[in-house]
Amino acid sequence: MSSKAPKRIFLTEDEMPKQWYNVRADMKNKPAAMLNPGTLKPITAEELEHVFCSELVKQELDDTTQYFDIPEEVQNFYKIFRPSPLIRAYELEKALDTPAKIYYKFEGNNTSGSHKLNSAGAQVYYAKKQGLTSLTTETGAGQWGTALAMACEHYGMDLTVYMVKCSFEQKAYRKAIIETFGANIIASPSNTTNVGRQILAKFPNTTGSLGCAISEAVEKAVSTDNCRYVLGSVLNQVLLHQTIIGEESKIQLEKVGDYPDVVIGCAGGGSNLGGIISPFMRDRLTGEKNPRFIAVEPISCPSLSRGKFAYDFCDTGHVTPLAKMYTLGAEFMPSPSHAGGLRYHGMSPILSQLYHDGYIDEARAVLQTKVFEAANFFAKTETILPAPESSHAISVAIDEALRCKEEGKSETILFNLTGTGYFDMTAYMSYRDNTMSDIIPTDDDLQAGFASLPII
Amino acid sequence: MSSKAPKRIFLTEDEMPKQWYNVRADMKNKPAAMLNPGTLKPITAEELEHVFCSELVKQELDDTTQYFDIPEEVQNFYKIFRPSPLIRAYELEKALDTPAKIYYKFEGNNTSGSHKLNSAGAQVYYAKKQGLTSLTTETGAGQWGTALAMACEHYGMDLTVYMVKCSFEQKAYRKAIIETFGANIIASPSNTTNVGRQILAKFPNTTGSLGCAISEAVEKAVSTDNCRYVLGSVLNQVLLHQTIIGEESKIQLEKVGDYPDVVIGCAGGGSNLGGIISPFMRDRLTGEKNPRFIAVEPISCPSLSRGKFAYDFCDTGHVTPLAKMYTLGAEFMPSPSHAGGLRYHGMSPILSQLYHDGYIDEARAVLQTKVFEAANFFAKTETILPAPESSHAISVAIDEALRCKEEGKSETILFNLTGTGYFDMTAYMSYRDNTMSDIIPTDDDLQAGFASLPII
Repeated sequence: MSSKAPKRIFLTEDEMPKQWYNVRADMKNKPAAMLNPGTLKPITAEELEHVFCSELVKQELDDTTQYFDIPEEVQNFYKIFRPSPLIRAYELEKALDTPAKIYYKFEGNNTSGSHKLNSAGAQVYYAKKQGLTSLTTETGAGQWGTALAMACEHYGMDLTVYMVKCSFEQKAYRKAIIETFGANIIASPSNTTNVGRQILAKFPNTTGSLGCAISEAVEKAVSTDNCRYVLGSVLNQVLLHQTIIGEESKIQLEKVGDYPDVVIGCAGGGSNLGGIISPFMRDRLTGEKNPRFIAVEPISCPSLSRGKFAYDFCDTGHVTPLAKMYTLGAEFMPSPSHAGGLRYHGMSPILSQLYHDGYIDEARAVLQTKVFEAANFFAKTETILPAPESSHAISVAIDEALRCKEEGKSETILFNLTGTGYFDMTAYMSYRDNTMSDIIPTDDDLQAGFASLPII
Repeated sequence: MSSKAPKRIFLTEDEMPKQWYNVRADMKNKPAAMLNPGTLKPITAEELEHVFCSELVKQELDDTTQYFDIPEEVQNFYKIFRPSPLIRAYELEKALDTPAKIYYKFEGNNTSGSHKLNSAGAQVYYAKKQGLTSLTTETGAGQWGTALAMACEHYGMDLTVYMVKCSFEQKAYRKAIIETFGANIIASPSNTTNVGRQILAKFPNTTGSLGCAISEAVEKAVSTDNCRYVLGSVLNQVLLHQTIIGEESKIQLEKVGDYPDVVIGCAGGGSNLGGIISPFMRDRLTGEKNPRFIAVEPISCPSLSRGKFAYDFCDTGHVTPLAKMYTLGAEFMPSPSHAGGLRYHGMSPILSQLYHDGYIDEARAVLQTKVFEAANFFAKTETILPAPESSHAISVAIDEALRCKEEGKSETILFNLTGTGYFDMTAYMSYRDNTMSDIIPTDDDLQAGFASLPII
C-alpha cells in the first residue's frame, strides 16, 4: 500500500455484496401502501401482477425482509461491469483547495453509461425466469432504455421503449445505441396507445414527459400477451436493486478507513439516491452513525423541495397505481432541460417518507447553468465527462466542499457519479455558447400541477 | 478467489508498472535512423529539438536503454485512469462456443475514450517540464486530440489541434468534447498554414488525411515561440509510453496463471499494437516464449499488407523527417472510412522492422462491414460499445477463436480494446441501415501512392 489512499478503490468479485438491502425493514414509518387507481384501495399482489412480473411484485410489497439474496445469475450479470470503482477526487479537492475529502462512486463505467444497469439486470432476469417473452418501458435521458436493452439482449427478451419525445429528438445517437442493443424505440407521446393519442390530442406540441411515457408503456404491456412493464426508478424494487451501489461504497470506504459525513445524490425518481444512501441510512435509522443526506434536484422540476406529500398517480395517463410521495402533480410538465432523467413529477415513496420524517436532511434545487459549470469543472479536473443528471450531485458536492473550506472542516463527502455525458454533447455545447437557459417554475405553474392531484 | 477466474482482472496502484519498456533494446535489427528531409542524412537530436521537446527526442533516438523510469508526476496522472482492467471475454466465448480463452485489455475506460491518454500524459509532462507554453498536434478519429486536450488541461498548457476534415465533419460531438477540455481545434487542411493552403489549392475537395494534418501541426509548432509538436502514434517515443498497456496485461495474465498464444491489435500508426505486444515481444526476442502477433488494418489503408518497406515522409507536406517504414506513400489518400484513427499511410518504424523480420507474424486487412459486424456482436455479448478502430482487433480475435473451435484448440487470445464508440454512432447507424461501403484500393490507387515515395 502507498501511504496515500489510492485514487481508485476497487473490490474483487468476491468482495461484491451478495444481498440487496431493503431499507423499509428498518423504517419506523413505512412508505404508504400503493392504491388501486380504480378502487382507491390498497393494491393487491394479484392486481400488480398484471403489470409487473411476480417476483418483483413480492419485492415491491415487502416491508419487512431486511435483505434479499441477489440470484447467482444476476451476480454473474453484475460481474460484467461491477464492482464499480469508488474514486477519491484528489484532483477536484486540489482545484477547490478544500480540506474536505471527496469520494465518488462511479456508476457510469459501463456502456449503458449509468447505474441503471443494476436494476435492469435484475428485472429482466426475473421476467425471463417467469417465462415472459417481452417487456415494455419508458426512458427519459435514454440511460434506462439503454441499460434495459442491454439486459434484454443478454437474457434474450424482446423490448419496446417509449422515449420521452424531447430526448428522442435531442439524442439521435442515444436512440441509435438503444437500437444497437436490439430494442424497438418509439417517441412518446405516440399514436401506438390510447393514452398517447389522448395526450397528443390535448397537447399536440408537447415534448413529452416521463409520466406520459410510463402510461404508454404500461398500456402496451397489459395489452400484449406474455409481456410485462418494467420501470427504471421510483419503485421500491428498483431502490432495492440499486442498494448494490451503497453497499459497495461502504465496503470501499472501510478499506481506506473512512465514513461519509455527508452523502449526496441527484434525485429524479430516486433510484440512484436511494441506492447510494441505503446502507448509510441503515446506520442512521439504527442509531449507529449520523451521516447527513442531500437530495439534489433540478430547479425546473423540484418535486421534493416544492412538491406536496400526497397520493398521486405515477403517470400522466392515470393507468398506474397511486403512490404517496412528494409530487408536483402528474400533469405538471417540466420545461425541457438537459437532465432528461430528472424530469419526473414525483419521487420514490421510500425517499419521500424518509424526507418527510427528516432522515433525508435536505433537498436542494439547483440551476441548470450552475450544474453545467460544475460539470465542466469536474471534467477538467477529474477527467471524467459527467452526465447532466450526475452533475447535479457534483454541483452540491462542490458547494459542500467549499463550505468545509470556509468552516475549516475536513469532512468526508460521498456522492454518486451516476453516469457519463457522451450523449449529452448538445447540452455541453449549449452551455459553452451561452444559449442554455434556466427556467424556474412559477407558483402558478406549480398550482396548475397540484390541481391535477387526486382528492383522497 | 472464486474457482473461476474473475471477469475483470484489476491491479492495485502499487502493482502498476513503474517503467516503460523500450523494445528496440532487444531488437537485433534496429529500426533505421530517421533522415533529415533536406539533407537526407540521419537526423540529429539538435535538429529534432526544433520540432519535439528535448526529453522526448532522447527517448526517440535511444536504441539501447531497455527501461525508462516513468516520472512520478506521470505515474500520478496515470492513476487517474489506470491501471486499466484486463477482461476475460466469457460472454463472447460462450456466444462463439469456442474452446479458446479470450482476454481483452480495456483501454477505452476513460473520458478520452482510448489508450491515447498514456502517451499524452507523458508528452505534455515533458513539455511542461521544459518550460514550453503551447503544443500543436493532429487528430484523426479525435481520440488523440481528446486525450491531449485532457493532458494539456491537467498540466496547464495551450493546445491547437488539426483535425482531419472528414472526422471534423462527421464528429461534431467529438469536436465539442475536445473544446470542453480547452483546446483550439481546426479542420485540416486549413488555410492557417502554408502546407494547408497548398494542399487545398491542389485538392480543393479533399477530406484530409492524418499525413496532411501532421504537416500543418508541425509547421504551426516550428513557427510559434515556445511551442512544440506532439504526435499520438508512429514515433518510437509513443510506442515506449504505450508499453504500459502490455506490461500491465502481462501482470494481469500472470495473476490468473495465463499467457497468450496470440496477441492482436489494430494498426494505424502502431501505437496501441506496439504497446500491447511489447513485453510479449521481449519474450520472443529473447527466446523465452513464442507467442504469435497479428496486426489488423483496414482494407482501405493496408500499409503493412500491401505497402512497401521504404523511406518515406511521415506527412503529406514533407516537413517531417523521413522514416523507414511500411508505407503506401505520403500522398496516398485513403478513402473515407469510419475508423479515422487507422487512415494513415505509414506505420511505426519499430513495428515495420519487426514485421519485416518476421517477428510480427501476420498483417491482416479487413473489410469495414465485417469489422462492424464484429463490433455489434461484441457490444451485444460483452456490453461494451467498441470504437471502429478497436473493432478491427475484435474481428480478428473472433476469427481466431473460431479457428480454435474448428481445430479444437484451447488457445489463449489477447487483444487490445483500445477505445469506445460513443462518438461513432453515425458509423453504427450506417452499418445498421446498410449504407456502409467497403472500398478496396486498386493496384492503380496503390501505384499512385508509391509514385510519391522519395528516391533514396
